[in-house]
Amino acid sequence: MTKVVLGMSVSLDGIAGPRTADADGMAIFTAILGWQFPLRSWQREQGMEGGEDSVDSRVWADNFARFGPQVIGRTMFDFGYPNWGENPPFHAPVFVVTHRGQERISKSGGTNYTFVTGGVPAAVEQARAVADGKDVLLAGGVSIARQGLAAGLVDEVALHVAPRLVGRGVRLFDAGEVDLCCLETIQGEEAVHLRFEVR
Amino acid sequence: MTKVVLGMSVSLDGIAGPRTADADGMAIFTAILGWQFPLRSWQREQGMEGGEDSVDSRVWADNFARFGPQVIGRTMFDFGYPNWGENPPFHAPVFVVTHRGQERISKSGGTNYTFVTGGVPAAVEQARAVADGKDVLLAGGVSIARQGLAAGLVDEVALHVAPRLVGRGVRLFDAGEVDLCCLETIQGEEAVHLRFEVR
Repeated sequence: MTKVVLGMSVSLDGIAGPRTADADGMAIFTAILGWQFPLRSWQREQGMEGGEDSVDSRVWADNFARFGPQVIGRTMFDFGYPNWGENPPFHAPVFVVTHRGQERISKSGGTNYTFVTGGVPAAVEQARAVADGKDVLLAGGVSIARQGLAAGLVDEVALHVAPRLVGRGVRLFDAGEVDLCCLETIQGEEAVHLRFEVR
Repeated sequence: MTKVVLGMSVSLDGIAGPRTADADGMAIFTAILGWQFPLRSWQREQGMEGGEDSVDSRVWADNFARFGPQVIGRTMFDFGYPNWGENPPFHAPVFVVTHRGQERISKSGGTNYTFVTGGVPAAVEQARAVADGKDVLLAGGVSIARQGLAAGLVDEVALHVAPRLVGRGVRLFDAGEVDLCCLETIQGEEAVHLRFEVR
């Protein structure tokens, strides 16, 4: 049974990203996501060899093996697309929630980008349809995460918590009451990995 | 060496308490703190017998054994004082940060309330002076926690994370950049217990 997992990295004060794409925004991104870059498993996804083996790296590798299709927002797509290159790190179908429809883009390594104009529910439905026994990752940004939660589409929340207070930027969780149940707690070297089931 | 530990319960979306002392405020308190009430160790602190033995109960008992003096804010004191009664659950000196000085109040069971007008730094200094080898707990509320962090007085942050999104109320962490390092991660039945060292 395919699960839809909201999986994101946040700071201990719940910040998931910057408000601005300037130098301070990059500093916030690095504070939240910087722990991933040295990981052997993360580097392998990027097509690089090397990196550190660690608890964090193994958690990241397990994540990667678990997830098939991903659902992301247009802002995240526009920000990431130039960096993801010709062999993007997804190696799976990616469904981009957008107001502006466009043709599917196919890349090498198993990644293709499908643009979905029917909102998060339609994108999740399309992702489920090609999940092939794997789970669907709702990977961000914050707006997509909140819409997925509010629509009751999320089965599980998987947070990688970077142990720092950032004090500015966009919080992952905003409004809405949700009851969860902790499934797993892993203390890595550079992040705490928490999985919760949505009740 | 006595450590000053900011120890509080929060929801997964980082809410530490309500904004209002009405029915909705009580609902928020219960969502964040309700997991404590059935614990055997919590009930023992209140002078009751019974309650459930569990991972959460043992974490709570370890906390209790570790801490001597506590520092709390005036709002928390005014809210809690009538309920804490003649044999309050602290069983240790409590330093209340306030703008209005008053005489010390002594209760049975080892608790006394000292009112400190010199702000969080003065209260922490007085608590350290009577810690007698134990650690000092900065127990809240949110304003006291933030002041302690901002003044660089906190050695460790210990969070009990209730697995729910509350979506309203007062967030524990607001502004300010702080780097931490995870010391311990314990998955309880009803809460996740995380300890971080302030770098």
